Amino acid sequence: MLLEDVRSPQDIQDLSADELNDLAGQIRETLVTTVSRRGGHLASNLGVVELTLALHRVFDMREDQLVFDVGHQSYVHKLLTGRYWRFQSLRTFGGISGFPKRSESPYDVFETGHASTAISAALGLARARDLQGKKHSVIAVVGDGALTGGLCYEALNDAGSANTRLLVILNDNEMSIAPNVGALSSHLTDLRVSKGWNSTKRKVKSGLQRVPVVGKPLYKFIHLSKSYLKSLIVDEGFFTSLGFHYFGPIDGHNREQLERTLKLAKNFDGPAVIHVLTQKGHGYDKAEEQPERFHGTPPFYVETGDPREASPYPAYGKIMAEELNILADQDPKIVAVTAAMPQGTGLDAFGAAHPNRLFDVGIAEEHAVTMAAGMAAGGLKPYVAIYATFFQRAFDQLVHDVAMQKLPVVFLLDRAGLVGEDGATHHGVFDLAQTLPVPGLTVLAPRDIGELRLMMCWTKEAAGPVVIRYGRKSFDMNERFPNRKFVPGHWEVLLPGADCCLLATGSMVREAVTVHDILEEEGIAAAVVNCSTLKPLDETLLRAFADRPLFTMEEHVLTGGFGSAVNNFLVAEELSAPKIAFGLPDTFVQHGSRGRLLRFLGLMPEQMANRILAVLKPSIKENPDE
Amino acid sequence: MLLEDVRSPQDIQDLSADELNDLAGQIRETLVTTVSRRGGHLASNLGVVELTLALHRVFDMREDQLVFDVGHQSYVHKLLTGRYWRFQSLRTFGGISGFPKRSESPYDVFETGHASTAISAALGLARARDLQGKKHSVIAVVGDGALTGGLCYEALNDAGSANTRLLVILNDNEMSIAPNVGALSSHLTDLRVSKGWNSTKRKVKSGLQRVPVVGKPLYKFIHLSKSYLKSLIVDEGFFTSLGFHYFGPIDGHNREQLERTLKLAKNFDGPAVIHVLTQKGHGYDKAEEQPERFHGTPPFYVETGDPREASPYPAYGKIMAEELNILADQDPKIVAVTAAMPQGTGLDAFGAAHPNRLFDVGIAEEHAVTMAAGMAAGGLKPYVAIYATFFQRAFDQLVHDVAMQKLPVVFLLDRAGLVGEDGATHHGVFDLAQTLPVPGLTVLAPRDIGELRLMMCWTKEAAGPVVIRYGRKSFDMNERFPNRKFVPGHWEVLLPGADCCLLATGSMVREAVTVHDILEEEGIAAAVVNCSTLKPLDETLLRAFADRPLFTMEEHVLTGGFGSAVNNFLVAEELSAPKIAFGLPDTFVQHGSRGRLLRFLGLMPEQMANRILAVLKPSIKENPDE
Repeated sequence: MLLEDVRSPQDIQDLSADELNDLAGQIRETLVTTVSRRGGHLASNLGVVELTLALHRVFDMREDQLVFDVGHQSYVHKLLTGRYWRFQSLRTFGGISGFPKRSESPYDVFETGHASTAISAALGLARARDLQGKKHSVIAVVGDGALTGGLCYEALNDAGSANTRLLVILNDNEMSIAPNVGALSSHLTDLRVSKGWNSTKRKVKSGLQRVPVVGKPLYKFIHLSKSYLKSLIVDEGFFTSLGFHYFGPIDGHNREQLERTLKLAKNFDGPAVIHVLTQKGHGYDKAEEQPERFHGTPPFYVETGDPREASPYPAYGKIMAEELNILADQDPKIVAVTAAMPQGTGLDAFGAAHPNRLFDVGIAEEHAVTMAAGMAAGGLKPYVAIYATFFQRAFDQLVHDVAMQKLPVVFLLDRAGLVGEDGATHHGVFDLAQTLPVPGLTVLAPRDIGELRLMMCWTKEAAGPVVIRYGRKSFDMNERFPNRKFVPGHWEVLLPGADCCLLATGSMVREAVTVHDILEEEGIAAAVVNCSTLKPLDETLLRAFADRPLFTMEEHVLTGGFGSAVNNFLVAEELSAPKIAFGLPDTFVQHGSRGRLLRFLGLMPEQMANRILAVLKPSIKENPDE
Repeated sequence: MLLEDVRSPQDIQDLSADELNDLAGQIRETLVTTVSRRGGHLASNLGVVELTLALHRVFDMREDQLVFDVGHQSYVHKLLTGRYWRFQSLRTFGGISGFPKRSESPYDVFETGHASTAISAALGLARARDLQGKKHSVIAVVGDGALTGGLCYEALNDAGSANTRLLVILNDNEMSIAPNVGALSSHLTDLRVSKGWNSTKRKVKSGLQRVPVVGKPLYKFIHLSKSYLKSLIVDEGFFTSLGFHYFGPIDGHNREQLERTLKLAKNFDGPAVIHVLTQKGHGYDKAEEQPERFHGTPPFYVETGDPREASPYPAYGKIMAEELNILADQDPKIVAVTAAMPQGTGLDAFGAAHPNRLFDVGIAEEHAVTMAAGMAAGGLKPYVAIYATFFQRAFDQLVHDVAMQKLPVVFLLDRAGLVGEDGATHHGVFDLAQTLPVPGLTVLAPRDIGELRLMMCWTKEAAGPVVIRYGRKSFDMNERFPNRKFVPGHWEVLLPGADCCLLATGSMVREAVTVHDILEEEGIAAAVVNCSTLKPLDETLLRAFADRPLFTMEEHVLTGGFGSAVNNFLVAEELSAPKIAFGLPDTFVQHGSRGRLLRFLGLMPEQMANRILAVLKPSIKENPDE
């Protein structure tokens, strides 16, 4: 059977084992080919091919409900639920999303993107089922990494006592396992080829005595595995103590064994967890060798695994870590905190240089922030690097644990603004709304990598909490506008201009310069101001420039953002407010390249220039049409 | 020894057992007397008298660091650390806070107020100690209720593997135990008088076989106790699986036993938990009988336990629950969700009428919101009642799990605005900044109980997510302004007036009417508009009133609030913006009565009227001074 002929999961019900194996091969080929062109999450999807096939064969997802935690492992599910022919459009503007989308298919019952939500959502679905007298199954597929999130625990705690039928598939792909862990690691490798539950149990039991004392970097592994192993040996442990029945571990690439276990668990009357061992990247050697590199990947060459094109500038995270290393060399009180993203945030380079001063707390943004507050109260200077979208998790901790005590924690919000292909769940476009109202914060956004260096250097003097937001895409404007100095609260006038003033922040500074150049051709002299401090505003400079038409530019929702803050100040001062606030409208922006999204939103330089011209032309020069 | 002579914990080091018992009695008397006058948290403080004495005798808090989770049980600590003479000012403006405050005493090392933060903070303090080569102890005191919060789990998970010296005192005061639990409950009562670890262990073990199957309302109890009992029997369980050494359970009112165990645990080289059983309200019969009533209490008569004065109007939560009951009688899809606050939110009345449709998920706001999203995706209509300040915990879940999928969840944000005596950690003054930028939300604030009824009735038609915010103090304006109807997006013109227009929302509508009356005496006709929908704004009405001077009034920080939204709209429309936005400044507001705080902030009607007069007088009538 050809994958392209699978219109719905009904089409795979009567296939033979050989046909299913063949289909799995086609799925993997499609995954590798498509992601090599479009970028996306590859390793996790290669790991769940058999699991997804088994789920769609044992359950009838027209009735039963499947929730993928994080959702980046839903590609196989998409291929089996009628989306093969659109799959080439993966992550492009208007195309198939990289995450479950209810608008794409009735088989996507709940949308995800951030980690650790699936058990909560599934419990809600199960309770809705019960109250409405329905009988279908509800299944949550959760990775082992997501289990470090407190939301998972809250949900397990509630579900374990709720006495409702709910199936949690723990997809244990060893994401948090470092390569060379010693006896315990190689032992788990044995597990992965085991055929049955009982022999597994024996192996684990006998292996346990050989566990050596291992070092700190391995803590998460030791950690999770500790509970797992206990549950094998004494038939309880983490899940059973929370009220779940435990099945496993199962070889996640043995489809037949998976189906047998799923059928067994399907009829279990209460909350149950099936522990499935999968291999990230299974079936594509490059991804098997470098599962972290192929977790989320840009387009790449299939043969070599190398990215198709390198970014012209080093990522902001890389710059941040370089500067942090310099600061940390001078100041032993500097530490760094990451919530399971040492690579994504760039902090791995800090950990390499200062291994005892990098703290990876797991996918636990709330704890990362409050723990950092404790560190600061104890005399350290913590730098917490988190993606802007995930920082939404720690709003209360920012307000209640850091800002209220004026603790000197520096927050480095990466991926602020439009992230592009990952789409609505991952755009970092609410962080200013979240930080600007908080008393005592200093909020910064560099125009380019050079300014980020200057800002990092300044943070050593900061006595209170600081937030620095920067985007996924980095810029370097040093050639035209040399990075001279950074003073918080002092904006930088990049270009003079008496006809109007463009107040731009972060990623929009470069766009503002282009707008300036376009306007110049039209005979309009636009000043360009790099508003690198968003809180406090540079009130002196605002007053000075309020004599000419103002335009604000930001990569953030307009409500509660930079333009709004400028408005509030000018109105309070009875000065004339900006003519146009450029930014994101009051909708969730979907996926697509950043450029395509900016165009869609009217935020490309020529689009902004045109709107500015429409406002200014009558007042600048006589309009012959009037 | 007299309590008033205790200037610091050093003064209690050499006391005899009898003297300490006597001191405990004086502490209880001071607690009851002071809280009976000032209101506050009584039952929890009566429960930790011996524990706090023991902690201050075994540890030297000049070096060692003590973090109270939630912090409302820190009164005894305050009395022992030099604050006896100011304790009468408890919770009054400028007086002693009801929570730990670093500005009050060096013995308060970390400020708390919201649940579940202490282990994270303590871990941060411990890591700061280790990196700086210090040796002191770090102790977190955590209630059993707080353990249902995911933040606690994230911290335990991190701490358990951190290999650092950290002591967690689990203050198990049975807060989540319903009164008549059966065999297991009475068995735990036995435990509470046991003298030693071994006999306790035996008793629990033998008692376990007698556990009956119990119903749903008891789940939290069964739940926690399940892990506890297991940890006793098999010497592992929840804490040990997370890497903690476990001591307990200990009778929390046996100071000598506490001190022995604390001394033992003090020298344990790694993370450890001491499980302490205490009785809420211990020593004051009214509080022992009604621990929930005396958890947080208004001023009361010591003899009877009755509150000194009743509120003139029913609380908003009561009205909400009454209306929700009516809606639920008609619609079986309506359910309610609370995060461990059925009484505080008023949802207990819903639970009484619809026991199968109220879901108490524990202190787990994140899960409450995502679980509700799952319920809505499954076809139910969930109403989630949470205090505005705790809703900060669920910002990401609101954005990512509810709004992005346009799910019909209704959020009922109680205690929005200034809560008064609980102070900075509990004011609900960031909820508009948190909700107004979120696409697709409808955000409402009723002017009084009658309008809340109308809004609740309307929610049955709402197809998307809705937020209703209301304050701790309720109003009834029906006599002067009858509650006729509520239409979302349509503001209500309460009073006409051509000279200016007061745009007020929620609690400030009543103040605006008073401002109107004051201005009227000065010959100024001020229109008063009840801006009951904050998102979307009533743009038609705003345009109509933009011809006269506008003033906005809200009980919320100005940045990102109602006035800011009005500004943004008017500026975008090139209409004249408000002259003054009345609201909270960019600082954390401390504790005191709501009236006293409003006066401090210049938000009392006469203060606002004076500022408006200063703006309007020149333009309304000729100023004789000019």
